[in-house]
Amino acid sequence: MKKFNDIEVIINDKRYTLSGYESEEYLQRVASYINNKHNEFRNKDAYKFLDSDLKNILIQINIADDYHKEKEKLKETEDENNEKSNEIFDLKHELIAAQTKLYSAEKEIDDLKSELNESQKKIVRLETELREADRKRRQ
Amino acid sequence: MKKFNDIEVIINDKRYTLSGYESEEYLQRVASYINNKHNEFRNKDAYKFLDSDLKNILIQINIADDYHKEKEKLKETEDENNEKSNEIFDLKHELIAAQTKLYSAEKEIDDLKSELNESQKKIVRLETELREADRKRRQ
Repeated sequence: MKKFNDIEVIINDKRYTLSGYESEEYLQRVASYINNKHNEFRNKDAYKFLDSDLKNILIQINIADDYHKEKEKLKETEDENNEKSNEIFDLKHELIAAQTKLYSAEKEIDDLKSELNESQKKIVRLETELREADRKRRQ
Repeated sequence: MKKFNDIEVIINDKRYTLSGYESEEYLQRVASYINNKHNEFRNKDAYKFLDSDLKNILIQINIADDYHKEKEKLKETEDENNEKSNEIFDLKHELIAAQTKLYSAEKEIDDLKSELNESQKKIVRLETELREADRKRRQ
């Protein structure tokens, strides 16, 4: 079971304590991502004179945009994944079909080889009999 | 090329104009997602008396958490995708190998059949010659 943690993070120069089951590493990663957004906004002239509420909403929109973009990428990747699963299913079927045909073909080869072997033995026997008959006829 | 749009959205009961290449449908979806976060927070007793700045930061953390969770899911799905691509690559190779073997086996079957056919003709010929020799010997 995951441990319940109280983790201190600093966001936009203020200290917050976050409580939850997330690891410290994860929460620091989230905090650092949010700080990067605040820094990006702080450095843009157009945002300097906006009030804190508006800045915060713009940052929320920016983060929510990242989230929705990632969600769309995930959807596309899941679709690709499903297509690949279908392709794997089809390929496995084709492979089994080819292997089954190959198995039958190999069996047929064995049967033909032993039939051919019998025929060749019969030819040798008949040729011997024929030579014998020939020899007798000449006596 | 995408059109540059000015889209009005309402977030937390305030009107904002967002400018960009995103579609109105997309931006309204993002706005409605953010409003849901504000509503969730508004309804929690523990958050009612927090100042607006702290509420905004908590909402940013919450959205950033959604983003990072989605990012991790995307990473996992991409890894799965790569594994599936490798599996497809291997299956295609196995399939080509099986089909090549099958092709050779079918060729071998054809060769054996015509060899067998020749042998059978030879047997018929030898049997005829033998019967002939027998007939002559009895005369």
